[in-house]
Amino acid sequence: MTAMNAFYAQSGGVTAVINASACGVIETARKHRNRIANVYAGRNGIIGALTEDMIDTSRESARTIAALKHTPGGVFGSARYKLKGLEENRAEYERLIDVFRAHNIGYFFYNGGNDSMDTAHKVSQLSKSMGFPVTCLGIPKTVDNDLPITDNCPGFGSVAKYVAVSTREAALDVLSMAKTSTKVFVLEVMGRHAGWIAAAAGLAGTRAEDAPHIILFPEIPFDETAFLKRVDHCVKKYDYCVIVVSEGAQYADGRFLAEAGTRDAFGHAQLGGVAPVVANMIRDRLGYKYHYAVADYLQRSARHIASAVDVQQAYAVGKAAVEFALAGESAVMPVIKRVSDRPYRWRIDKAPLAKIANKEKKLPRRYISKDGFSITEAGRRYLAPLIRGEDYPPYINGLPNYVSIKGVAVPKRLNRNFVV
Amino acid sequence: MTAMNAFYAQSGGVTAVINASACGVIETARKHRNRIANVYAGRNGIIGALTEDMIDTSRESARTIAALKHTPGGVFGSARYKLKGLEENRAEYERLIDVFRAHNIGYFFYNGGNDSMDTAHKVSQLSKSMGFPVTCLGIPKTVDNDLPITDNCPGFGSVAKYVAVSTREAALDVLSMAKTSTKVFVLEVMGRHAGWIAAAAGLAGTRAEDAPHIILFPEIPFDETAFLKRVDHCVKKYDYCVIVVSEGAQYADGRFLAEAGTRDAFGHAQLGGVAPVVANMIRDRLGYKYHYAVADYLQRSARHIASAVDVQQAYAVGKAAVEFALAGESAVMPVIKRVSDRPYRWRIDKAPLAKIANKEKKLPRRYISKDGFSITEAGRRYLAPLIRGEDYPPYINGLPNYVSIKGVAVPKRLNRNFVV
Repeated sequence: MTAMNAFYAQSGGVTAVINASACGVIETARKHRNRIANVYAGRNGIIGALTEDMIDTSRESARTIAALKHTPGGVFGSARYKLKGLEENRAEYERLIDVFRAHNIGYFFYNGGNDSMDTAHKVSQLSKSMGFPVTCLGIPKTVDNDLPITDNCPGFGSVAKYVAVSTREAALDVLSMAKTSTKVFVLEVMGRHAGWIAAAAGLAGTRAEDAPHIILFPEIPFDETAFLKRVDHCVKKYDYCVIVVSEGAQYADGRFLAEAGTRDAFGHAQLGGVAPVVANMIRDRLGYKYHYAVADYLQRSARHIASAVDVQQAYAVGKAAVEFALAGESAVMPVIKRVSDRPYRWRIDKAPLAKIANKEKKLPRRYISKDGFSITEAGRRYLAPLIRGEDYPPYINGLPNYVSIKGVAVPKRLNRNFVV
Repeated sequence: MTAMNAFYAQSGGVTAVINASACGVIETARKHRNRIANVYAGRNGIIGALTEDMIDTSRESARTIAALKHTPGGVFGSARYKLKGLEENRAEYERLIDVFRAHNIGYFFYNGGNDSMDTAHKVSQLSKSMGFPVTCLGIPKTVDNDLPITDNCPGFGSVAKYVAVSTREAALDVLSMAKTSTKVFVLEVMGRHAGWIAAAAGLAGTRAEDAPHIILFPEIPFDETAFLKRVDHCVKKYDYCVIVVSEGAQYADGRFLAEAGTRDAFGHAQLGGVAPVVANMIRDRLGYKYHYAVADYLQRSARHIASAVDVQQAYAVGKAAVEFALAGESAVMPVIKRVSDRPYRWRIDKAPLAKIANKEKKLPRRYISKDGFSITEAGRRYLAPLIRGEDYPPYINGLPNYVSIKGVAVPKRLNRNFVV
């Protein structure tokens, strides 16, 4: 068996640990040079393959590759670019396989979410029919934690830890001052479709009086009266109220709270920003002094407070993808299988891409308390292990020493440009 | 000399390290029980003295007191409560001294900013004239870094580190995705009157292409045309643009950007939130996709990423205050004196409260670049040492193990209540 090259691409929103998966892929591939000659990485994800703009990872030192494990963001560039259906745009898939063929690429590792698993699956099928079969492996990544089968998604644990730690810290601040200053604090977190990230904030406290006092999930229709009543109750009973709201929080009719109300000077509905909407509601109806924070990208790039479990798993799925590929598996994705909760034990398993593509895992109702404002013990049992352990990056002069790559391009071999 | 008690109070907005100063006070006092019998802490700051609601710190274990060094927020409760001028409200000062006298309190340690130094100074003067002289020491604390004489203020270094680290991390995220997604990221930071915190974000990058590409300081009148031109330039040249904006950013006529434009559904001007104002401006005029974050309390409570230098200095000023008091000094505040930049060396000195009270230290113009959008080498030289070193709190199950106190009240001795 002659060695072929591999193509690796990052897809969709990046995370604090997607580069750890890249590290797992490249370090493992480097141990099998007789099978995988070189790993090419797509510059800006799959776009790099379509435009034949690939990064030669063999030009990066072992030290640089190792440092990917502690560097957030997507070091090769990621993309929000979904390949259309095969019928609609066969040309894109064929171009992909033309590029793979031209560069002797026999392995395709696609690191992303639902859409990416769909793409990897299609490439696997089409490449066979085009007479250049490519071994296609998905590598899970998403802060949204919404991939099916896998117990959790690399990227989620670190956001979860960031949100839980930040909630605990901000709550101490608010509580200190509540007597004479701010009484209500609202933290907006990501999760347009599912409340996984908001749920993680629930780990910050364990007793009724602990923050967060209220979590607003996208899964639970927003009831303004019940919400304001609860806020008032918390301020009266505990002196303060900390609210964590998912950006996807919505009314029963499906309208996002974020779209309800706020308009800028030009009369445009203001996008994003559910926190100010909730905060203004409290000011207008209850009159309490408030502050709000919007974590936005800070939460998903916060490698400085990454979960050690998350980093390990992100690396493990990258490594396993290469090992599965070398074992002859294709059209599969490594998944994380939970063996036990306490002590937390997990192992890597695999699942067919066909079963993952375009499917979403929702936050189960049994993880949300009956009143809809907090998490249950079952939710806590699921979430708690995922934020375990600290994995600090190295620092120089007080700042994390994140790595950048040389990013040397693989010389082009096709004389046709492709416009995406 | 018979031992007297000491009173310690936290004042104003809390920080990630104000409890480290409390730790310095209490641990040092405990080494001198022959002189300082006990440290009483004001519950909710100075309000605790006025209402005779004091916490007996002798009921807290050595372990709890030691843990204050790694716990953010204000563990005894702080307050935004400024005593009025002596003429306007002599009754408040007299009440304070009545309480001190009733509890044999000969030392007053007031941990706060400008206003608090003014109060401590007045108490020092009045107590003498009332025949119960109290040794009054200020202990500097403010994330705003605006106290004069001291080279920097405990609390600032940790916010500075949080902001610099977060900017670096978010920038990696935005850069990864800029080809097909968000091109502009806006981070709003604290600093209503001075741009010290915004300036600290400048430490995140060192080259022209590094984030932050633009800092908006309160000190530099906002010029929309110049700003938008720079944003456009950065996106065209570097593919993305990261902007750090101080909540105090303002137009030449003194109007805050945060007040300009956004109104809620009820037509109220929306308070806070300069980030969405700047972001919407970019959307409307340049059309770039944007995201924004509002760090708010997260930045000043982020003990998990505190600066080790800041923690050391916060402890040192608390310790020094007690030592100065025992050496017979009064109406002074320990200050941090910078001995050298590289290597960074500092020592504790002292300054009279009269010279600190009600004075503000502004960000010098020479720390801001000529075009007003970044920091100079002089600014960098000043700021860089303050974020040095990491001082991680202990963790249990993935969350920082912050301490809470028993908070046992000192029995009241006065039979008159005082309403604040």
